[in-house]
Amino acid sequence: MLRIQENGKCQYQNTKMKIKRKNKKAKGPNLYKKAKKIILGGNMLFSKKPEIWLPNYWPTYFSKASNTTVWDLDNKKYIDMICAVGQSTLGYTNKKVERAVINNVKKSNMTTLNCSEEVELSKKLLSIHPWAKKIKYARSGGEANAMAIRIARSASKKEHIAICGYHGWHDWYLSANLKDNKKLNQYLLEGLNPVGVPKSLRNTVHPFRYNNFQELKRIVKKYDIGTIKMEVTSRGKLPDRTFLRKVQNFARQKKIILIFDECTSGFRRNFGGLHLLFKLKPDIVMYGKALGNGFAITAVLGNQKVMAAAERSFISSTFWTERLGYVAAINTLKEMKRMRSWKILIKNGKYINKCWKNLAKKYNLNIKIEGIESITSFRFLSKFNLEYKTLIAQEMLKKGYLASNLIYINIFHNKKLIDNYIKKLDPVFKKIKFLENNGNISKYLKGPKCQSTFSRLNN
Amino acid sequence: MLRIQENGKCQYQNTKMKIKRKNKKAKGPNLYKKAKKIILGGNMLFSKKPEIWLPNYWPTYFSKASNTTVWDLDNKKYIDMICAVGQSTLGYTNKKVERAVINNVKKSNMTTLNCSEEVELSKKLLSIHPWAKKIKYARSGGEANAMAIRIARSASKKEHIAICGYHGWHDWYLSANLKDNKKLNQYLLEGLNPVGVPKSLRNTVHPFRYNNFQELKRIVKKYDIGTIKMEVTSRGKLPDRTFLRKVQNFARQKKIILIFDECTSGFRRNFGGLHLLFKLKPDIVMYGKALGNGFAITAVLGNQKVMAAAERSFISSTFWTERLGYVAAINTLKEMKRMRSWKILIKNGKYINKCWKNLAKKYNLNIKIEGIESITSFRFLSKFNLEYKTLIAQEMLKKGYLASNLIYINIFHNKKLIDNYIKKLDPVFKKIKFLENNGNISKYLKGPKCQSTFSRLNN
Repeated sequence: MLRIQENGKCQYQNTKMKIKRKNKKAKGPNLYKKAKKIILGGNMLFSKKPEIWLPNYWPTYFSKASNTTVWDLDNKKYIDMICAVGQSTLGYTNKKVERAVINNVKKSNMTTLNCSEEVELSKKLLSIHPWAKKIKYARSGGEANAMAIRIARSASKKEHIAICGYHGWHDWYLSANLKDNKKLNQYLLEGLNPVGVPKSLRNTVHPFRYNNFQELKRIVKKYDIGTIKMEVTSRGKLPDRTFLRKVQNFARQKKIILIFDECTSGFRRNFGGLHLLFKLKPDIVMYGKALGNGFAITAVLGNQKVMAAAERSFISSTFWTERLGYVAAINTLKEMKRMRSWKILIKNGKYINKCWKNLAKKYNLNIKIEGIESITSFRFLSKFNLEYKTLIAQEMLKKGYLASNLIYINIFHNKKLIDNYIKKLDPVFKKIKFLENNGNISKYLKGPKCQSTFSRLNN
Repeated sequence: MLRIQENGKCQYQNTKMKIKRKNKKAKGPNLYKKAKKIILGGNMLFSKKPEIWLPNYWPTYFSKASNTTVWDLDNKKYIDMICAVGQSTLGYTNKKVERAVINNVKKSNMTTLNCSEEVELSKKLLSIHPWAKKIKYARSGGEANAMAIRIARSASKKEHIAICGYHGWHDWYLSANLKDNKKLNQYLLEGLNPVGVPKSLRNTVHPFRYNNFQELKRIVKKYDIGTIKMEVTSRGKLPDRTFLRKVQNFARQKKIILIFDECTSGFRRNFGGLHLLFKLKPDIVMYGKALGNGFAITAVLGNQKVMAAAERSFISSTFWTERLGYVAAINTLKEMKRMRSWKILIKNGKYINKCWKNLAKKYNLNIKIEGIESITSFRFLSKFNLEYKTLIAQEMLKKGYLASNLIYINIFHNKKLIDNYIKKLDPVFKKIKFLENNGNISKYLKGPKCQSTFSRLNN
């Protein structure tokens, strides 16, 4: 353990060596070394790279999980205070969703025929969204985004798109970076490289910043924009109803198709998307993440006009017919509604925010808390923010927590659990205060500092 | 029942009315009518549209399935002699795969951490493909195709692509039709509409026909082609080793990246892709469909050079981290290997081919059988081919079969099952012979004739 009282370099190094020896035996980090040699990028999701949290020491792989507890490959148990990337608001292995999925597996996931659950889920989702008339499903957010763009372009017959937020890995989106490799930097992820994206798409997608209506207007004046696509809340900012309404009215006036990407924001503050809360009516909206509580399902909802225009477009995929995603989503929606899960998320999120604030105040640390209640994060207003983030992961891991500076709240992050977590976080904040005043932070990190994640997550 | 001896219009109409009344109560076709109003395109996969098989009367939806038996929403049981689209070569609900998937569901499908099964599956797949060095996974064939193109373009730094076969719904592929709406007709599906695909992509993707090496050479001479992407066997043709070798040598000589799309052909004739059987070494290969025996998982394998070039490309998606697909694939591969499933598929496929031939001979009907053994189809060399295909579906449905003129063989399509099916098919062929000579086929169809499916499937 690292102690605030530094009783000499010797003790620190001993601890370091002990940690190193211990880590040699840790299965996760070792397996990740092998993974990087045989998997492109090392894993499947940027936000689950160990480099984002605690390079060289992150457990990296899980063996099992329940509620908000995760076991690693060494069967070591952690309370998960990250829950990236918000795909299980009901906690890991919700029993009702689990039972329904298992029943589906036993009765077969796919056949020559379709599953009626795709119709059942559609009815359910449309009943929550009276403005929407038709739906199409996919199995990843990136694909749902590409689908929404295809639908919008079918309807607008224009290819220019204004974007605000993160919308996946596909060509249409990354093409925004073809002109200038730094263009998307202020929107999501630094250095997002458009290598492999056809240069023909250059200058078809134009980013604007959240709450910058003038920027959007300039883009629409300059290009023949057919579609505006945006996250309803973006990069840690709270959703701004006035801005959103302005964008909606502007889009209507200019006959531009408006898409809200609610893959991340959906079902966390209300039963559906944030746009419903604000009484907004986009032309298209997308959901993903929380919709299946940990099972792959994404949905694109559109109004009558855009969906009618897209009927001629060829959009079809074998694995979108698997019943599992629909069954998971139907039962997730039922469970969410039954327990009014979004209310629990808001309550838990508010509480963790309060606790972080108090802790920062206690140690006179300058932190900035951002995001909606249930996707919330803090950063230290210090040049060592990333180092401190790494230190939190390192120290909290030893105490049995997967923790960092952000959390996707689930229903199990209740007061008691948060209180215990804050008790463990307290000495780490104390340590950080000490380091802000006196210390050499790099001396206390076992490995390199973590990389920054999506800038909208404020790391 | 329709009888060969026509004993008057009256009796036929009575039957028709009876059928109509009966159909009013059939849940599947009725639900599909509703589905078309709320789901874009009515369902998720072109090849599972009821219009492809038996308009207005196809059961359309399943409630459960086992081995090669499917139950519809009315709990009516059918032997599945189509098994579209070949995603379950081990039959529906293989017990070992099922157990592993259920175990995974109980232990949680996704967490903040990755699943080690993605590494395990990679090791397994790479051991079958010594030429490949790295892998990336997705959850749909379309997305795997888009990913392979991104990887290839990252490596070639050229955007022009020559294609041969069907490669999904994404923009890059459909852009081939931007010049001329009929361009892809001879490659897959008539009238594939590029509506919604950005016109900037016009003239970047260039189709060539299978076994037409001169056409490929002309394309490469005319455009700065960086990638050749093709199905190893295409549109019902048997894979041609000489042609494939010629393409491979040509690609190497011209420093063009060669991609084999084995999403459909993989694991049906050997343990892996057809290219292994022919000792070919592409730069990239993709698998899907059969890989997870009915669970969504697709894979892109690449050699050292192309994968190294793609490391800088941003390819990432939340739901690619779900453990389910990897668990299903690992156990499917184990089961395939254990029972040498491809040998069973070949045997069953050969037998059904022989039976079809004999039946056609018996009734002196002119049919053409195409495809590899385990994805096999026949068409009547008659202008009423589509009508006869519809009649087969209609008549066989009454006898408890989902049947048409094509089948994706699974291991349960054994001699006994095929013999029974052929016994039931015999009077339908007899009927068709009668109609070829004398009849008015449309009189015998309860609904409209079916639409044609992908031309490579010869309908």
